[in-house]
Amino acid sequence: MDTNVKVLFEPYGRMVEAKISSTLLDVAQKNGIGIRSECGGKQVCGKCRVIVNDQAGLNHITDREKPVLAEDEIANGYRLACEARLTSGSDKVTVMVPVESRLRPRRFTEWGEERRVRPEPIVKKYPVTVTRPSLEDRMSDVERLLDALQREQGLVDLTVDLQIVRELPNTLHSSDTITATIWDESEIISVEAGNTSDKLFGLAIDIGTSKITCSLVNLGNGEAIRSVSMENPQIAYGEDVISRIAFSQERAGNRRVLQESVIGGINVLVGQLCSEMRIRTGNIYEAVLVGNTAMHHLLLGLEPKYLARSPFTPVSRSLVDVKARDLGIEINSCGHVLFLPIIDGFVGADAVADILSAGIYRSGGPALLLDIGTNTEVILRHGGRIICCSCASGPAFEGVHIEHGMKAVDGAIESIRIDKETHDVEFKVLGEGKPVGLCGSAIIDAVAQLLRVGIIDSIGKFNAGIKTPRLREAGKNKEFVITWSEEAGIDSDITISERDINEVLLAKAAIYSAGAVLMKKMGVGKEELRKVLIAGAFGSHVDKRNAKTIGLIPDIDDGRISFLGNAALAGAKMALSSRSMRRRAEDIPSKVEYVELAISEDFRREFTNALWLPNRNPGSFPNATR
Amino acid sequence: MDTNVKVLFEPYGRMVEAKISSTLLDVAQKNGIGIRSECGGKQVCGKCRVIVNDQAGLNHITDREKPVLAEDEIANGYRLACEARLTSGSDKVTVMVPVESRLRPRRFTEWGEERRVRPEPIVKKYPVTVTRPSLEDRMSDVERLLDALQREQGLVDLTVDLQIVRELPNTLHSSDTITATIWDESEIISVEAGNTSDKLFGLAIDIGTSKITCSLVNLGNGEAIRSVSMENPQIAYGEDVISRIAFSQERAGNRRVLQESVIGGINVLVGQLCSEMRIRTGNIYEAVLVGNTAMHHLLLGLEPKYLARSPFTPVSRSLVDVKARDLGIEINSCGHVLFLPIIDGFVGADAVADILSAGIYRSGGPALLLDIGTNTEVILRHGGRIICCSCASGPAFEGVHIEHGMKAVDGAIESIRIDKETHDVEFKVLGEGKPVGLCGSAIIDAVAQLLRVGIIDSIGKFNAGIKTPRLREAGKNKEFVITWSEEAGIDSDITISERDINEVLLAKAAIYSAGAVLMKKMGVGKEELRKVLIAGAFGSHVDKRNAKTIGLIPDIDDGRISFLGNAALAGAKMALSSRSMRRRAEDIPSKVEYVELAISEDFRREFTNALWLPNRNPGSFPNATR
Repeated sequence: MDTNVKVLFEPYGRMVEAKISSTLLDVAQKNGIGIRSECGGKQVCGKCRVIVNDQAGLNHITDREKPVLAEDEIANGYRLACEARLTSGSDKVTVMVPVESRLRPRRFTEWGEERRVRPEPIVKKYPVTVTRPSLEDRMSDVERLLDALQREQGLVDLTVDLQIVRELPNTLHSSDTITATIWDESEIISVEAGNTSDKLFGLAIDIGTSKITCSLVNLGNGEAIRSVSMENPQIAYGEDVISRIAFSQERAGNRRVLQESVIGGINVLVGQLCSEMRIRTGNIYEAVLVGNTAMHHLLLGLEPKYLARSPFTPVSRSLVDVKARDLGIEINSCGHVLFLPIIDGFVGADAVADILSAGIYRSGGPALLLDIGTNTEVILRHGGRIICCSCASGPAFEGVHIEHGMKAVDGAIESIRIDKETHDVEFKVLGEGKPVGLCGSAIIDAVAQLLRVGIIDSIGKFNAGIKTPRLREAGKNKEFVITWSEEAGIDSDITISERDINEVLLAKAAIYSAGAVLMKKMGVGKEELRKVLIAGAFGSHVDKRNAKTIGLIPDIDDGRISFLGNAALAGAKMALSSRSMRRRAEDIPSKVEYVELAISEDFRREFTNALWLPNRNPGSFPNATR
Repeated sequence: MDTNVKVLFEPYGRMVEAKISSTLLDVAQKNGIGIRSECGGKQVCGKCRVIVNDQAGLNHITDREKPVLAEDEIANGYRLACEARLTSGSDKVTVMVPVESRLRPRRFTEWGEERRVRPEPIVKKYPVTVTRPSLEDRMSDVERLLDALQREQGLVDLTVDLQIVRELPNTLHSSDTITATIWDESEIISVEAGNTSDKLFGLAIDIGTSKITCSLVNLGNGEAIRSVSMENPQIAYGEDVISRIAFSQERAGNRRVLQESVIGGINVLVGQLCSEMRIRTGNIYEAVLVGNTAMHHLLLGLEPKYLARSPFTPVSRSLVDVKARDLGIEINSCGHVLFLPIIDGFVGADAVADILSAGIYRSGGPALLLDIGTNTEVILRHGGRIICCSCASGPAFEGVHIEHGMKAVDGAIESIRIDKETHDVEFKVLGEGKPVGLCGSAIIDAVAQLLRVGIIDSIGKFNAGIKTPRLREAGKNKEFVITWSEEAGIDSDITISERDINEVLLAKAAIYSAGAVLMKKMGVGKEELRKVLIAGAFGSHVDKRNAKTIGLIPDIDDGRISFLGNAALAGAKMALSSRSMRRRAEDIPSKVEYVELAISEDFRREFTNALWLPNRNPGSFPNATR
């Protein structure tokens, strides 16, 4: 019977319709509700436990669930989502997904402010009816297919991937209606029996130095379905790009190791997306990748050695278009993988995607874009010109090299307020549960608040005159307690130290001074800036005032400051969904001038000033510390 | 010193010039004189022994030769060709290559009558000087390469294989002069340090049902350097195409087994050519393949099932162009492998190549082309039309299914004369030594002579009235002794039996009647035929009169009959060496009409008549038995 039941997933407040006899895991996965299921629905791992208080609309607890669930869990309504099935016993079931069963949310990182673009995908599907051969009609299978596509769809001059040709006769014999998937109106990359027009997916993938994020997109309507991310497995071979390049030179084969490790990571994410969304990898026909130049070279297997040596020349700059099977990316093996073009040795396809998603390739008022990460890309548009540079800002704002730093995932403190009188600390934690560390936005808050209440001075040193139990010596270091261990989800206090603050100063000084150099080069004063656009993994929760207080971004009105989230991923999605956006992306490198900071006197001077809080040049931050 | 010495290789009568201090093996290999060398010149295998009576022009016998050669051999002038070096002691050295040291000659099979074409290769080499990058000149390596090719060679709009891009920086850093290999004026498929313009090779490969032949061609001047051949390793899975197709259906993976087996065979031949001619596989940039439709499908991995089922539809007809690495053919991995287009399910790329090398795509008088093999392709040109068909003729003329049949290699009897009075047999043997069997041309001779002297009648039965010890019963069979065991290199007599003769009749009837059907279809009488062109592995030594006597070919003047040898291989070489010939080959299938014999009443009638010697319709062979 095809009767539907309503299922409400909490705490998401998401109401969906589902068929009777579906498992709750099925329903969740079909609707983008992430539930852990490490055994793949085999009733073994017990990770998919959910709570259903009123079980009138479910089957009785089964013999497979009993060994996995504790007695008190069963009493409290716990079920395994892979074994609990909808029945006709109720027309509505409310399912609570407890924290431990949720696929780990990666806040902000999957979020990117792409501009809406008209879907205009490069890959399209065409269902056609192919005639059968006879002794009189001697067309080959390929001719027969091309003939149908021309007659019914008006398509001409198509080529066919040899791998498709190999299996074509069996497909044609199994069904009169077949669906051809065509890439760029020129190449047949898949032929499937029946009408499969609704199964047309693509991937936008951001290869960060620290993290890979992969977004599944329905190419039919251009909508992103779900994004997942993981640590870049290359981290095992070096935290920053320079150490990975060094590793690649240690012995023959290491370059391959780095390539396979990042591609292996992508394949894990693809597998996760496909199993969660119940789609076949063969129905993903294209992937658009972005990343910095080193990630570009390492993923494509290009010799990266000279990226680390002056004059830092990249091997290749233009868009790379290669068959998925040739890279080993596990989507449809005839599908295409595109790596967007790069700008220079230190400004990669991520910057191209930033420019695309922020729309700053178009004419408009002066705009400054900062894509903050382990490397920060800085882009300035003014009067029809776009210039860019890159600086090594370090991973402080991603929580790395900060003693209690962490990424913006559940358990991270995301914002902090320090009381001026009592020095008490208020904080907000991502997700539910006790805090375990500080993510980027909290680190900015902490430094800004410590400065504002006078606990640190303008060079980031603690003020010995302040008396509070939160301020204390720790060996040769000094630290301030954000969260006492009683309130924390870890065994120690959560603190921020002078050494941590120094890391922040180095990072923010690099980022600020890179922007200042570009502004000086084009003669743009901060008051002229119409927009300051900030991309990066700390996302929309950054306090603008605090970011100005520490001198990370120019001291301008909040209204002119926007956070874009993962702008590179957003740009990749746009290039995936729209042919004209892709052409635009191909065009961007030739429109952008690269500025080499390594040989810039201005950069050194600006950097030295920017090591102060907010800046040694007080005129540039008149309102910052108010 | 660069003084040259003359070296005469016997029994070939080939005089060449060589440098002092070269080994005889080097000199032989450089000049296409096949000498066995299984250890690759390491003085171990002893296969390369040659006889030099006057050793004044050679070094003394060395300590490495002594353990390998017997004392009496040394006394008789034997040397190892890999260790014997030219000295200034004489200005001429005569070298006898004994039978046992010769690379097995494959007579006729490597010979093909290609028309001379102007070399116009698709693959060309361009040496250029690439500038070095600097902080001011920020072109990527790829841009730098493209810039040099445009400035120095006027080449524009080139793409670069990603595999080349991967190693490009290392090549560019190792040498200012580099050589780019460019395919079809559009794609860079190799970048080598230094000027390597003289190392530019290609392969023409004929994939026969029974045999693979591979010809190495210097693409610089279009000259064939050397050809080698081997049994098609797919024979292990079935002797004819139908049994191989059946094998491919037995279980999943068998199609792959067949594909890998033929590609493995090709790679053995490529390895042999490269080691003999001392070239690197990486310097072979293109291969052009021909073969019948089943060989085409099996090599490319296309589903062959429907080739064996009415209406016998091929999967694909047009030229296939694929990277060598994607097929696993071990030439330069970025090189291209082309399979020439096919005409129909039973008329393949070999027929296209036949038409190309025989020149019958051009207008001209009526011409009939027979490519005789296990399958025989028959092509008729008349009045601007070309029609073709194919018949299963069986491998009798390749010596298979004939008790004492063998291929045209050393030891095969190649021609026979039977005395009308005494019934004594004169014969000629290929190579030196005693006969071991009968090759195709001898089989034709035997049947024709037996008919002419009255030992067999017009339906191929022995005449019981003839009294000669050579004619005898053998079980239920009757046989005629060609060679008594005393004269033979085997322990038994070499005979031809009634059953053998019946195989010949079936084969020749199929071939003749296929031609007759086409002639009738176009209204061409034999007296109008300007040319009868015969391709196939039995080659130039076929006695034209005897071929007419058995009714294999139409009874016309000898002057209008030509033997082309391996015409398919010759056509592949033409398409390899010349861009316009390749275009012509691509065009041929659309110009040729396929005639299906399976539904032809005429064929059945002609076939029945042709089972007689020369034919039941005596008017068609007025001169044959004279």
